[in-house]
Amino acid sequence: MRIARFSIDGNVAFGAVEGDGTVDSGDLVLDIIKGIPYADFELSGVKVPLSKVRLLPPVLPSKVVGIGRNYAEHAAELGNEVPDLPLAFFKPSTSVIGPGDSIAYPSFSSELHHEAELAVVIGRMCREVPADRVKDVIFGYTAANDVTARDVQQREKQWARAKGFDTSCPLGPWVETDLDPADLTIQCTVNGEQRQLGRTSDMIRSVGDLISHLSEAMTLLPGDVILTGTPAGVGPLNVGDEVAVTIEGIGTLTNKVIKRG
Amino acid sequence: MRIARFSIDGNVAFGAVEGDGTVDSGDLVLDIIKGIPYADFELSGVKVPLSKVRLLPPVLPSKVVGIGRNYAEHAAELGNEVPDLPLAFFKPSTSVIGPGDSIAYPSFSSELHHEAELAVVIGRMCREVPADRVKDVIFGYTAANDVTARDVQQREKQWARAKGFDTSCPLGPWVETDLDPADLTIQCTVNGEQRQLGRTSDMIRSVGDLISHLSEAMTLLPGDVILTGTPAGVGPLNVGDEVAVTIEGIGTLTNKVIKRG
Repeated sequence: MRIARFSIDGNVAFGAVEGDGTVDSGDLVLDIIKGIPYADFELSGVKVPLSKVRLLPPVLPSKVVGIGRNYAEHAAELGNEVPDLPLAFFKPSTSVIGPGDSIAYPSFSSELHHEAELAVVIGRMCREVPADRVKDVIFGYTAANDVTARDVQQREKQWARAKGFDTSCPLGPWVETDLDPADLTIQCTVNGEQRQLGRTSDMIRSVGDLISHLSEAMTLLPGDVILTGTPAGVGPLNVGDEVAVTIEGIGTLTNKVIKRG
Repeated sequence: MRIARFSIDGNVAFGAVEGDGTVDSGDLVLDIIKGIPYADFELSGVKVPLSKVRLLPPVLPSKVVGIGRNYAEHAAELGNEVPDLPLAFFKPSTSVIGPGDSIAYPSFSSELHHEAELAVVIGRMCREVPADRVKDVIFGYTAANDVTARDVQQREKQWARAKGFDTSCPLGPWVETDLDPADLTIQCTVNGEQRQLGRTSDMIRSVGDLISHLSEAMTLLPGDVILTGTPAGVGPLNVGDEVAVTIEGIGTLTNKVIKRG
């Protein structure tokens, strides 16, 4: 099931997306959810056309945990080695935006990069999850763009500013709850031109390994998001660009880059 | 004014602390606050003795931003240079504990360190705050222990696990809203023995500079916490230790180290 978060007439709700998965299709409808999507919920039967709503970030994470260098070809393209252990970093809740929202080019960077990624959404509070139980704590999957100020990342030892600035974490368009993450195509285009193309089967650490590793250190909460790393092909974003991340079985997350106002 | 968050008989509330600032003094009382402490509030006049409540973390931050190497002597003791720009990193909300709560020694470390720090609590949603306006967005100050798995920090390029594990961010005992942070004593003791002693006047970047710098990149929300770095004298914590951070004009934050259960 695809679960979107949206606003309509000033109200915010979750709904199940019914249709073929094309955001701009007038035929898609949202069946509004009663209750909390992470826990028990039912469909209300109240349907609104997708074209009448504004899609919001599909989750409100308390934290986003990013993973660096989880695809060997991407590590190599930036001249980095694959780390012995997953390279984990945080993006704060204030960095999250939704589909169609604008990425504001930060004032302190002149080299903004896209990084298309599969994002895992946690469904249950958990810690110390064994790899073979990780399935029980996953709510679903969405697309993410781990937007990075590459010049700042290279200058500053910790990546809080380079990867944590406002609008640096587009998520969406919705959460797909029925998906096997083992071998999906991840694609990134800029203004319609392909920049990244990879497969999740090339991840160095699997979704199960990553969540098991992270939850050894920290409690994960419902709605928390794990970004699983980006395949090769990262490159610059400029003001005016439209960047789109498409993940097989999920859909397309599109954002425009604007000058920070 | 000193504002504490506490639980009593299963209810959670904020209250103004009246008395001499000694947590275990039976004479201290909490005047329960009506409303939200970050915005307008009034004292209810309903008073409870401090000895009858459990103090909680004084704030519920959406994010904690730590600053590394903001005291020259501490940078030197770990063989590090002072960075050109503030070295910012995140600790997640799940790392926060309150006064009297236990620090759980993480399973993946064998070198846990204390780091006594002055913590700034944000009072207003803000971004791009000029240094001379920072006073307007600060709610107050509390004591923090930026507990660090030093061995993990040295092994892993990003510090998400080393400084972001559960219980790695003790905060408290309360927020002091009337305080000049320019020249305060910061002290850390372990089992009553002094380990760190510094003055905030030795910070390389002032509170104003730090918040101005961070808010250039990211929106700060009410309750968000900025840790301002630790003075020299960091050292090991072992299971059974009692670690206390005392800041002049605020009070003492005490926590015990336990085996993670």
